[in-house]
Amino acid sequence: MRTSENKFDLVILNGTVVTMNQAFDVIKDAAVAIKDEHIALVCPTKELPDDWTARQTIDATDAIIIPGLINAHTHVPHSLLRGVGDGLPLERWLSEAIFPIERACVDEDFVKVGARLSIIEMLLGGTTTFADMFFYEHAIAQEADTLGIRAVLGETVMDFPTPDAPEGVRQGLSLAEKFIDEWKGHDRITPAVAPHAPYTCAPETIRASRDLAYKTQTPVLIHLSETKHEVDQILKKYGATPIHYVAREGLFDVKVLAAHVVHPQSGELALLQEKNAGIAHCPRSNMNLASGAAPIRRMLDKNLRLGLGTDGAASCPTTNLFEEMGTAARLAKLHHERADVVSAREIFAMGTIGGARALGMEERLGSIEPGKLADIVVVDTGSSSLEHAPIYDIYAHLVYSTAEARDTIVGGMLVVRDKRVLTIDWQRLRRQVREQSDRITLVAK
Amino acid sequence: MRTSENKFDLVILNGTVVTMNQAFDVIKDAAVAIKDEHIALVCPTKELPDDWTARQTIDATDAIIIPGLINAHTHVPHSLLRGVGDGLPLERWLSEAIFPIERACVDEDFVKVGARLSIIEMLLGGTTTFADMFFYEHAIAQEADTLGIRAVLGETVMDFPTPDAPEGVRQGLSLAEKFIDEWKGHDRITPAVAPHAPYTCAPETIRASRDLAYKTQTPVLIHLSETKHEVDQILKKYGATPIHYVAREGLFDVKVLAAHVVHPQSGELALLQEKNAGIAHCPRSNMNLASGAAPIRRMLDKNLRLGLGTDGAASCPTTNLFEEMGTAARLAKLHHERADVVSAREIFAMGTIGGARALGMEERLGSIEPGKLADIVVVDTGSSSLEHAPIYDIYAHLVYSTAEARDTIVGGMLVVRDKRVLTIDWQRLRRQVREQSDRITLVAK
Repeated sequence: MRTSENKFDLVILNGTVVTMNQAFDVIKDAAVAIKDEHIALVCPTKELPDDWTARQTIDATDAIIIPGLINAHTHVPHSLLRGVGDGLPLERWLSEAIFPIERACVDEDFVKVGARLSIIEMLLGGTTTFADMFFYEHAIAQEADTLGIRAVLGETVMDFPTPDAPEGVRQGLSLAEKFIDEWKGHDRITPAVAPHAPYTCAPETIRASRDLAYKTQTPVLIHLSETKHEVDQILKKYGATPIHYVAREGLFDVKVLAAHVVHPQSGELALLQEKNAGIAHCPRSNMNLASGAAPIRRMLDKNLRLGLGTDGAASCPTTNLFEEMGTAARLAKLHHERADVVSAREIFAMGTIGGARALGMEERLGSIEPGKLADIVVVDTGSSSLEHAPIYDIYAHLVYSTAEARDTIVGGMLVVRDKRVLTIDWQRLRRQVREQSDRITLVAK
Repeated sequence: MRTSENKFDLVILNGTVVTMNQAFDVIKDAAVAIKDEHIALVCPTKELPDDWTARQTIDATDAIIIPGLINAHTHVPHSLLRGVGDGLPLERWLSEAIFPIERACVDEDFVKVGARLSIIEMLLGGTTTFADMFFYEHAIAQEADTLGIRAVLGETVMDFPTPDAPEGVRQGLSLAEKFIDEWKGHDRITPAVAPHAPYTCAPETIRASRDLAYKTQTPVLIHLSETKHEVDQILKKYGATPIHYVAREGLFDVKVLAAHVVHPQSGELALLQEKNAGIAHCPRSNMNLASGAAPIRRMLDKNLRLGLGTDGAASCPTTNLFEEMGTAARLAKLHHERADVVSAREIFAMGTIGGARALGMEERLGSIEPGKLADIVVVDTGSSSLEHAPIYDIYAHLVYSTAEARDTIVGGMLVVRDKRVLTIDWQRLRRQVREQSDRITLVAK
């Protein structure tokens, strides 16, 4: 019995473990042992049981072992639109650049190739879970499944024809239902429904999305209160500010993950708190599109379920969550005119356990603790990253000076090893990206 | 004769050349030929003379060839203080964290090891020239010389005892003069004097610095108008806002490079324009220390000599200028609440030819043109960076999606090849960094 208990699939050794457990334990010279897809043991390396064996070991000497990062809001196919419409404000960026290209170019192949690009960028950047809103979400599910990442995927519905629902919102909702039925129960993919935003979804669309999520016990992903313009527009149209508007239509009866929340109005943060809603803060996108700065100090003080998202690569322009964490810290300091307004540890929590809470998955993800899923990243601090040395504050190092993972493990599977994604054919991907970008260039001109 | 004309030291082939010349020419499938330390030829690869030969060639297929980036403001030894005092506002950060450690730990060894770390970080990040303000600047000059980077180095003077001038400002000024005498005429190192800031330099120190710069025909580096607090303090103390204050003391009689300029007051930008002063905009540092957002749109409209600086790694926290460019764009968009307030090309110009203008070196640096110094960087866009593909707008790609150089060439010498610095002993550096950080940790606690 004892022998079989101490047989592990993978053991990571000799690293500094940043657990992000409730006590924020940081354990030096430590090991993480993985069995099946879960974390079995976290302890100083020398306290591993004498008779331990593993099918594979990873030496993390001169490395930091962290929970896999969680990108709580993105649109993975947007990697194919990187740099398109640069310099336009949100409304014009959508109406003049993004929507026309989406109408002309977005099909299943586009979605697959774009998803592939973003997913490998995320894996190399230490992200092990992402939340997505797009069309043909079943194709994204296939890519995420194949490449080995974890994902919450929301099929987008809105009140006008979309690439995969040209007949309108009813078709979109039935696609969403079909997608949820197909993928529900997968160990790494959580299907969801994604009413796009208050300004693209009438009350009946919000209610129908809520009903679908309730019936299938899946989450809802939505953009909320991203710009001042949206707040004014929704107030005028529906007599309520965006978060109050969707609340009135009953959206918070189900689990909601709200992206952006840059301009919450009176009572809206309290409402999100009461309803256990998650928030995906997207500082780089909000800066790029001149949307504003979300009041994250107030959100943290209310202990809201606050995660970080990169948004799509069309507005961000990378899906690297390390970069997002650095920007989140700097934007908060600038916005509040206080350099001590947020700590590096609070920001790192937003990228890990906070993201898990935003997704409602904090029982399974977001920290390195026995029993949780083995989503783990090893960050090199040895010679190959010596230019970023020395390290006095491990959280500041992770938030400000780290850019990439050395090894990325999702559900116990090694997906990135020595900064190489193991699950991709680079030459084929290169050809596919060329084909897609040639098509897009024709439309964008 | 013709044969010898077409014998080059180094030819970079088959890349897309972003020249940053006045016409902003971008040349596809192009070559850059280098002879001695200068650029001899820039043309489509197929238009190279038939009889060309080179001692070395670099294939830049699937790569972009850009002018070396210019980091117009940093404190290279601060790499050893990365993350120290994180979360403090500027005044307390200086008085409680940085100055005490500097007093206790800064000696020639500290400066050398810290300089080494920052310089390799800059070279790997595509920076070929940096402007520095610190103590023991002669030691930094030695490091820059050995490692192969180009630098403008200002020995810092201020009105209280410093690590290398414990007797005060007179000693500091005489050290500065000695340093300038020793290094003047070096092909890559430009010595300078650096009165620290209006709040640390009385009128006589400003004037003495000006006199020294005038006598030795060297530039002056100074921090100017970094915080609102500084503006209020200097107005109260000297009856003039910071830029007017140093102008009154005659500082602009010589070439000045002003770091930060976050809070220029009435008439001060016009004054910088009239005096041909350079500005080093440091957006990440200004955000980290909650100093504010510099009005770069107004600076660009006045055609000021506007470059970009990372500031020291203690406040920034990396000296990577690619990251600084992305933040510069995002901060401007947020600050002006206009996503189209600045173009990616304008930002890339700030990191190249704008930095050269800020240093007063635009005749020799900042663009890829025959006759200029061969400071050139090759950025990979092939399989190893495929996650950032595709590229529609080359400037947006460089500003937003690029993080590192593949090859870095300074004055015709290859210093980074395939993302490896050729001029460093990593194991020795690792030991040295450990020794220094052990010392610092004792003081910081």
